[in-house]
Amino acid sequence: MAAAALANGDVRAGGGGAVPRPTNPMVTPLLTDLYQFSMAYAYWKAGKHLDRAVFDLYFRKSPFAGEFTVFGGLEECIRFIANFKFKEEEINFLRTALPTCEDGFFEYLSSIDCSDVEVYAIPEGSAVFPKVPLMIIEGPVAVVQLLETPFLSLVNYASLVTTNAARHRLVAGKPKNLLEFGLRRAQGPDGGISASRYSYMGGFDATSNVAAGRLFGIPIRGTHSHAFVSSFLGLDEIIDKALSSSDGSNKCEDFVSLVENWLVKIQGASSLRGSFGETNQSELAAFTSYALAFPNSFLALVDTYDVMRSGVPNFCAVALALNDMGYKAVGIRLDSGDLAYLSIETRKFFCAIEKEFGVVGFGKTNITASNDLNEETIDALNKQGHEVDSFGIGTYLVTCYAQAALGCVFKLVEINKQPRIKLSEDVTKVSIPCKKRCYRLYGKEGYPLVDIMTGQDEPSPKVGERILCRHPFIESKRAHVVPQHVEELLKCYWPGNS
Amino acid sequence: MAAAALANGDVRAGGGGAVPRPTNPMVTPLLTDLYQFSMAYAYWKAGKHLDRAVFDLYFRKSPFAGEFTVFGGLEECIRFIANFKFKEEEINFLRTALPTCEDGFFEYLSSIDCSDVEVYAIPEGSAVFPKVPLMIIEGPVAVVQLLETPFLSLVNYASLVTTNAARHRLVAGKPKNLLEFGLRRAQGPDGGISASRYSYMGGFDATSNVAAGRLFGIPIRGTHSHAFVSSFLGLDEIIDKALSSSDGSNKCEDFVSLVENWLVKIQGASSLRGSFGETNQSELAAFTSYALAFPNSFLALVDTYDVMRSGVPNFCAVALALNDMGYKAVGIRLDSGDLAYLSIETRKFFCAIEKEFGVVGFGKTNITASNDLNEETIDALNKQGHEVDSFGIGTYLVTCYAQAALGCVFKLVEINKQPRIKLSEDVTKVSIPCKKRCYRLYGKEGYPLVDIMTGQDEPSPKVGERILCRHPFIESKRAHVVPQHVEELLKCYWPGNS
Repeated sequence: MAAAALANGDVRAGGGGAVPRPTNPMVTPLLTDLYQFSMAYAYWKAGKHLDRAVFDLYFRKSPFAGEFTVFGGLEECIRFIANFKFKEEEINFLRTALPTCEDGFFEYLSSIDCSDVEVYAIPEGSAVFPKVPLMIIEGPVAVVQLLETPFLSLVNYASLVTTNAARHRLVAGKPKNLLEFGLRRAQGPDGGISASRYSYMGGFDATSNVAAGRLFGIPIRGTHSHAFVSSFLGLDEIIDKALSSSDGSNKCEDFVSLVENWLVKIQGASSLRGSFGETNQSELAAFTSYALAFPNSFLALVDTYDVMRSGVPNFCAVALALNDMGYKAVGIRLDSGDLAYLSIETRKFFCAIEKEFGVVGFGKTNITASNDLNEETIDALNKQGHEVDSFGIGTYLVTCYAQAALGCVFKLVEINKQPRIKLSEDVTKVSIPCKKRCYRLYGKEGYPLVDIMTGQDEPSPKVGERILCRHPFIESKRAHVVPQHVEELLKCYWPGNS
Repeated sequence: MAAAALANGDVRAGGGGAVPRPTNPMVTPLLTDLYQFSMAYAYWKAGKHLDRAVFDLYFRKSPFAGEFTVFGGLEECIRFIANFKFKEEEINFLRTALPTCEDGFFEYLSSIDCSDVEVYAIPEGSAVFPKVPLMIIEGPVAVVQLLETPFLSLVNYASLVTTNAARHRLVAGKPKNLLEFGLRRAQGPDGGISASRYSYMGGFDATSNVAAGRLFGIPIRGTHSHAFVSSFLGLDEIIDKALSSSDGSNKCEDFVSLVENWLVKIQGASSLRGSFGETNQSELAAFTSYALAFPNSFLALVDTYDVMRSGVPNFCAVALALNDMGYKAVGIRLDSGDLAYLSIETRKFFCAIEKEFGVVGFGKTNITASNDLNEETIDALNKQGHEVDSFGIGTYLVTCYAQAALGCVFKLVEINKQPRIKLSEDVTKVSIPCKKRCYRLYGKEGYPLVDIMTGQDEPSPKVGERILCRHPFIESKRAHVVPQHVEELLKCYWPGNS
């Protein structure tokens, strides 16, 4: 990661383009609010544009009524400032947008980059808490203001969806496989790509999004949809019916008949008798066809017609035929209905098949569920009991439906070494002045106890020394802590020329 | 608009790259779910990949518990298919993602474009309703499946935010100025750019987003932030104090003193006496400095310290000084507190200034409000009474906070002229089979009465002829309509080679 490399000191500002451009080519210095430019002009006119300013980027409240946030988006911010430079056509556009500004201002804009800017940040992927700056940005006030909107745009959603993914992981539990399926419902194409990336950072195992897989090396997953199932009219559509065995030692010339024979055996099995009658033939054709294409990774969506009376028996017929040829079917996906009930019934069916036909391990065949899942529905499934191994989560994960925005802000805390504050009748909106240092204090058992902020020049907390930690706004909240380990939270990710 | 051009027949498929690429360069044929490729392979293996399929793209329920949706995203879909072609490196990535697929499949993928695809759609920006297809996509089943995810990704959020913007316009009323301020809170950079574009389509007047302004020709707006105000320490920071008059006829060498004199006059005015005492000098310096930079477009954020006791009097002092020099101040922005009360008090203050100092029109000075606004808060302001002229709306608009996703789906309705259906225990999830024609029927007064769908070969409704319209799922909902005007809803936007 570019940002990590910078933190390790491997790459320095001006090191010859070592930091790649932002992933999304639309992230340019114009991706900002117009007022950043009108302010820059006013600063420039007043001769204040080089005033050394310090801004904190922080949030006021963890999302989803939760107690933590996971910080995401830092690498993209570093990529952005490492490549921050206006193109001539961008300057020309700004001239039309701000027609009353003097030429000298546009010459100034043309000249700026981020070599005078310093960025300190908490490492991406860390658990972070309200009010403590995730990033401290120091530099000429006009330049740092131009970074406000792109930084917030790169951090707000990234942190929100990383946090959302981490919360889904916590409720699903470590052993479950979590798949991000949200591209089609995300807020625009880049929303989808960011969602895949930051869901993976937040603890997901894979995505359906091919572009994100390619860009970020995330494992990608996917099999087929309902449309695939309903596109088949019947088994006679399958022309090439041959399948070679897994080890290549033999070939079944008519895999379709093998499947049909297995379906008859399942229908006749005493332990399954009466649970279903005729299955849907277009579905059976689709499953068979898919298995012929992917004998090594057969996973079937079983709810196009009827899960227990058609989808699961059809799947088992194909899976047992594959088993004859030395292939192990992966499993099924449920995309509608009562997922707790259907997963339990499906598991029973799989176990009955294992017992009836002596196929060792068949009872453990994977069950994926994927219908409008979110934290609450997974929690409800856990409480009811279920047999789902993998969750495919889309809309609620990627749009952060329960809270669609994180309110990170970017506040001036110091200018020319003078502390600055934003007052407000709402005490939670009052900013905390001064350039800060931030520490995470750990207790005896190795767990973090508290994050504290100090002024830049105050002594740092020491291991074994008692320190009084005070809540910044609630006077009664205070505690003495004797840290066993002290971690400085913000590291330098962009040293500028300093 | 490219799409409109296509509908007019100006541009044809294969017309030599006449349709530009998607706005976001990240929108490539890989921006799709992996299962579209695994299905394509299974179709190809089964020799079914060229089967002629018809898919409907539609939604099941209007968002925000509302009665309408505004369709957005069509132009980007057309740009996407007009340029649909895999690059060699994309094919190479797919080979690694699907290692068991045969070479012939990747050769097939390399060869495909959308020249065999036809797209019919309702014009972008139209009011649309559940179940009626927004787009009908016909073509080889494997190719059309590859379009599913990118089309949904381009349409879902676009339509959602266009609808959200239109709803904000309806509640705010036509005369109000609506400004989209959401970039920093949007779901990623492209979410921000799309939000600006589609908010404008939905009835907003301008955006703060410079990049969106440049890309789409949307008017851009912006002045300054709280940080600008708090970055000033006092009036002695202002070095260049001179301001030429609007007509260039004279020059004020010390505009700062002119402002200070006006502040004293306002403080002494009988009609304003006692409403405030000393104002904040760092704020006064910031306002004065901003006015020196933008004398023609002075708009001040007045809530950094105290709206009525500092921000508004300081603004008026600067505005009256500008007035002396022939400039008309634009107005103020409120970003916190009780917006109804503060806007009314500010209006009273402006009117008192107009009367006290005889500055005609000063009472009508613009008041912008911008603190976490949404449909409900604007409605509440309307009910309380307020004096806001312009609303700046961010988070709730661009993230569609009240409902963060629209559930457009893409369903197979016909293959090789055979109707296909997706069944479900949930009747609202059952798809409506067959390729359709869709009409909007208008009544005597020129208002639309109903949208109806017919089979492709059924006779179309005729003006003046009674027709029975039936709800597709609720049998008791039916009505006879005698249309005075019949509009075919879907037009051909991409004719392929046909």
